[in-house]
Amino acid sequence: MGSFFDTAMQSAVLKNLPEEDIKTIMQKSVIRNLERGASICIQGEAAHSLFVVLEGWVKTYRVTPSGNEAVIGVFTESGCFGEEAALRDQPYFAGAEAVSDGLVLQIDGTYFAKAIESNLSVCKAALLGSMDQNRALVQHVEQLKSHTGAQRIADFLLSLCKSETGSCTVILPYDKVLMAAWLGMKPESLSRAFRRLIPYGVHIQKNHAVIESIERLSDYADEDPAESWNAQSRSETS
Amino acid sequence: MGSFFDTAMQSAVLKNLPEEDIKTIMQKSVIRNLERGASICIQGEAAHSLFVVLEGWVKTYRVTPSGNEAVIGVFTESGCFGEEAALRDQPYFAGAEAVSDGLVLQIDGTYFAKAIESNLSVCKAALLGSMDQNRALVQHVEQLKSHTGAQRIADFLLSLCKSETGSCTVILPYDKVLMAAWLGMKPESLSRAFRRLIPYGVHIQKNHAVIESIERLSDYADEDPAESWNAQSRSETS
Repeated sequence: MGSFFDTAMQSAVLKNLPEEDIKTIMQKSVIRNLERGASICIQGEAAHSLFVVLEGWVKTYRVTPSGNEAVIGVFTESGCFGEEAALRDQPYFAGAEAVSDGLVLQIDGTYFAKAIESNLSVCKAALLGSMDQNRALVQHVEQLKSHTGAQRIADFLLSLCKSETGSCTVILPYDKVLMAAWLGMKPESLSRAFRRLIPYGVHIQKNHAVIESIERLSDYADEDPAESWNAQSRSETS
Repeated sequence: MGSFFDTAMQSAVLKNLPEEDIKTIMQKSVIRNLERGASICIQGEAAHSLFVVLEGWVKTYRVTPSGNEAVIGVFTESGCFGEEAALRDQPYFAGAEAVSDGLVLQIDGTYFAKAIESNLSVCKAALLGSMDQNRALVQHVEQLKSHTGAQRIADFLLSLCKSETGSCTVILPYDKVLMAAWLGMKPESLSRAFRRLIPYGVHIQKNHAVIESIERLSDYADEDPAESWNAQSRSETS
């Protein structure tokens, strides 16, 4: 339970709360063991819970009126979702599905909503958490608009690194089609984009990405796309 | 002041507050008259205020390390920005600039932060507002990933309509380059995409868009992109 508690505590929805409140909330929660492909919640269903990922990967997605699926979130350890629907007592805005085997913490939405209604420190914690998620979304929008596909992969890999310097190996547990959907790319562009990262010290080995230098990859992710294209041409012709 | 008060009251940051609290906040605020191109706040500057647009158009943008600009928000009446920085006493995450002549309400961030710290109803209102903005961002991400350029324009036009049925004329006050940046398109794709909307009853007249039928345009925006492409081909060959 110790390490799950630590993972849950780092989630946007809980991290600003006093430790005591988190403990009470954990007692009102269950840990769900999920197989890959398991449904966690369904778009439009009455929301009863909010969720924190403890292990593995989860996607949230919306089904468009024509039946297409748009991936709107990809979450791993400490990622949380469903809180808006649960707190507002509204239907889930998006469905969620396990994209690897994993564990999620399922928090009782009614209990959490009551805590917010009556406790200023819980409400402030939820506000800060919501703002964190807002900022993450703004950064994602920024990446979609101003970064090349290869830079978006770099951003994504960097978001999985626990450190800001040195080398790092991250796990890419879910399928390439999902990864492409999340990064706003066509699946066929993904392997091309991965190849573009080789000169920047990124090597894919099955479902692992080995990053030689986090600093070097960060520099690349922050480059002007035109410059990065030049760098890419140079590296290809050298 | 009456109509400005109504506009401010509809903003995500204020709309869930008791009217009395809004009045007090308005008294702690100033209305700034802006010319097109005027800077409202600067990325990285210490945040003193949050803002609600009362008239005209504002963009928020981030400057990348290489000097490129990424538009991360486009706001008109009742749109609000800067609240996170002001409430957290952090530097502004993004800069803001008037993209037409207009008016913004500048709310004292310190006062607002104190109200949240001490008043549960203000804190809950801010939480609901933050969740609204979150949802709008999620929808924008969904559009960027699953909609064609022409559908994104349709989404944008629909977001400007005050009604959900009938016909409507909306004002497009800012330049085409900005509009393309916000919708994640190249400027040269924009007029092509506008032409694709003609069969769906959208006509551009200078900086106005006349929408013959909001329902018809909504149906188009919600179509499967493949189907919409077919519809487009049909209309071009008919």
